[in-house]
Amino acid sequence: MRDVAVVGAGMIDFGELFEQSFDDMAEQAYLNALDDVDKGIESSDIDAAWFGTLDIAENASSGLGLSHPTGLFEMPVTRVENACATGSTAFRSAVEAVRAGSADVALVLGAEKMRDSAGGLIEGASLEQVWRGRGVTMPAFFGLRATRHMEEYGTTREQVAEVSVKNHENGSKYPHAHYRFTCSVDDVVDSPQVTYPLNLYDCCPVTDGAAATVIVSEDVVDEYTDDPVWVAGSGLATDTFERGKDESLAGFPATRQAAEQAYDEADITADDIDVAEVHDCFTITELVTYEDLGFCEKGEGGAFVEGGTLQAPDGDLPFNTDGGGLCNNHPGNRGGMTKIIEAVRQLRGEANDPVQVPDCEVAIAHGTGGSIGTRMGSCTLVLGADR
Amino acid sequence: MRDVAVVGAGMIDFGELFEQSFDDMAEQAYLNALDDVDKGIESSDIDAAWFGTLDIAENASSGLGLSHPTGLFEMPVTRVENACATGSTAFRSAVEAVRAGSADVALVLGAEKMRDSAGGLIEGASLEQVWRGRGVTMPAFFGLRATRHMEEYGTTREQVAEVSVKNHENGSKYPHAHYRFTCSVDDVVDSPQVTYPLNLYDCCPVTDGAAATVIVSEDVVDEYTDDPVWVAGSGLATDTFERGKDESLAGFPATRQAAEQAYDEADITADDIDVAEVHDCFTITELVTYEDLGFCEKGEGGAFVEGGTLQAPDGDLPFNTDGGGLCNNHPGNRGGMTKIIEAVRQLRGEANDPVQVPDCEVAIAHGTGGSIGTRMGSCTLVLGADR
Repeated sequence: MRDVAVVGAGMIDFGELFEQSFDDMAEQAYLNALDDVDKGIESSDIDAAWFGTLDIAENASSGLGLSHPTGLFEMPVTRVENACATGSTAFRSAVEAVRAGSADVALVLGAEKMRDSAGGLIEGASLEQVWRGRGVTMPAFFGLRATRHMEEYGTTREQVAEVSVKNHENGSKYPHAHYRFTCSVDDVVDSPQVTYPLNLYDCCPVTDGAAATVIVSEDVVDEYTDDPVWVAGSGLATDTFERGKDESLAGFPATRQAAEQAYDEADITADDIDVAEVHDCFTITELVTYEDLGFCEKGEGGAFVEGGTLQAPDGDLPFNTDGGGLCNNHPGNRGGMTKIIEAVRQLRGEANDPVQVPDCEVAIAHGTGGSIGTRMGSCTLVLGADR
Repeated sequence: MRDVAVVGAGMIDFGELFEQSFDDMAEQAYLNALDDVDKGIESSDIDAAWFGTLDIAENASSGLGLSHPTGLFEMPVTRVENACATGSTAFRSAVEAVRAGSADVALVLGAEKMRDSAGGLIEGASLEQVWRGRGVTMPAFFGLRATRHMEEYGTTREQVAEVSVKNHENGSKYPHAHYRFTCSVDDVVDSPQVTYPLNLYDCCPVTDGAAATVIVSEDVVDEYTDDPVWVAGSGLATDTFERGKDESLAGFPATRQAAEQAYDEADITADDIDVAEVHDCFTITELVTYEDLGFCEKGEGGAFVEGGTLQAPDGDLPFNTDGGGLCNNHPGNRGGMTKIIEAVRQLRGEANDPVQVPDCEVAIAHGTGGSIGTRMGSCTLVLGADR
């Protein structure tokens, strides 16, 4: 099995991009990823591509939705959709194919027009059969997760809010971010209520954007860079609240399972990780994810984030150093790609001052998604400066 | 790179299954695939799964749409969507992962509720940006392909109709088929017009169904069967009419490219193939595909099918021995899986009398899909009785 490395990573400025078409966004992200390759790359070098998007009705269907804006025809293009773990899963699928030898150079591109998608991407995912008409939207379900965590473990409203404070601090310094303002715990707690206990600043924005990476096999990596970022491990798992596990409302079993797979493959533990780019569709999601990724014990996520302990540059462990989904985008889909891109920037030592982690050697990029927060899938990637 | 074999294949009876839910169909196809494994298999043996479906809005989103009906949680599940090459591409993705060593035993499941999908799956694929409101539906675009082929190569209406006659003859003997009647060339030519020159019997039905296969690595194959069907090669490519290639309206360049990849990997030519299960959303699609898969020269598809030459058991080369998409289903999605399943049955010597090909050693399963027939992707798989 061959090792696989990231040699290019690019994205566009995220936001409400009514002036750009889906193809405009995807094309520019693709060109930015090619431009990012140290020693240069031609489009003709690309053997295969993976396309991560939720959108089917309006802008893109099948792998062909990638071929058109990039001009990458006459090669395998596979569209992968795994709810809000779509970008991460597309990346993982590409890695598997390069490992298997079916491509040496692969593009992974994620794109989404969330602001004007006719189908209502998130609404569609929210309103699955059983729950239709019961008012259990995504914010409502994650609100239930928050109240459960608060009841079970004594997590405070202010601890939950600290996730937002930290991510907005990071996002305010990130040029591609959709939201670039800072906020305090009071600002979060006093922002308009969306669904108890989650307020506006606890929720990620609905954002248009596109992002891409170029990955290559160890056999050709020297042609593209002297500073590759290696894929050390990956994991993917599904689980569901409906299986009746008590734990699953205050935690994401799929995240634990996917992390276990990825850590095993990379032969690391959570203690080895220098920077973590994790799914943060809501503040509570990131807080619970600290626990499920093994950074702290179950129930201790509130204390873990309290008091700026995760705030770069002075905190113990930087999380979501690009502002995460709370500032950038909904963190799935092409947002899953931004997790990978920020991990790559950190490992290369190219992250923004002051969030660059010194001597950053191991990073994770993590995505979670599913239907109304009950059926959840999680994809976790471990990236390393060394093999 | 490890060899990969199919050890189980199962489907449900296809049709207008208003009495079954999406989950009902998927669950039964899954159980049938497990039951088909010679030496038995437990669900706990499965390491990972791939889910091929177009449907997102109503019944399934992400890999979790497979986890729920099968109970396969706590493992990697990846949803792949590649228009009407979805089932084939999901299978190919699973093969790559098993080759890469990330799973030893994998499930590939395709399912679709086409009759009651709120989004209108085929309509959605038809009505992409540029063509919206111009009346260029799927039948209309494939009708243009037919008139182009007739104009350019002198293909006759009757030759096109022979594809339908052949497939309905085969489908009439296949217990899982949606349509099980026979028809003559006159019946096809006299059936109600859908879009010139294609009539009702030139078009596949819109069908509900589910189908699944179990694949394993060479390392564990002996635990499951003494009669494996090996994956000898696979190819995947995209192309588009919009690139202005003259040939692309009377042919599918992506099919040629994908076939070339698959034949190269399997180290065969079209001459080595004993039975072919190919995409036949419309009669003209199959006729053109004879050419693009290399069974005859460009423009000779009409003569190739004329006079029952492809009709098992007496014809030269059997195509779509289960009745194909014209009898079974729309041939994409879970229909792509039926192509693989029929190829497996042929290679095992378990196909229906009289369409079983004697000494069948090499089969292909082929899928094509895209947007209104302009942007097309094609996935071709070569399966073999021997490695």
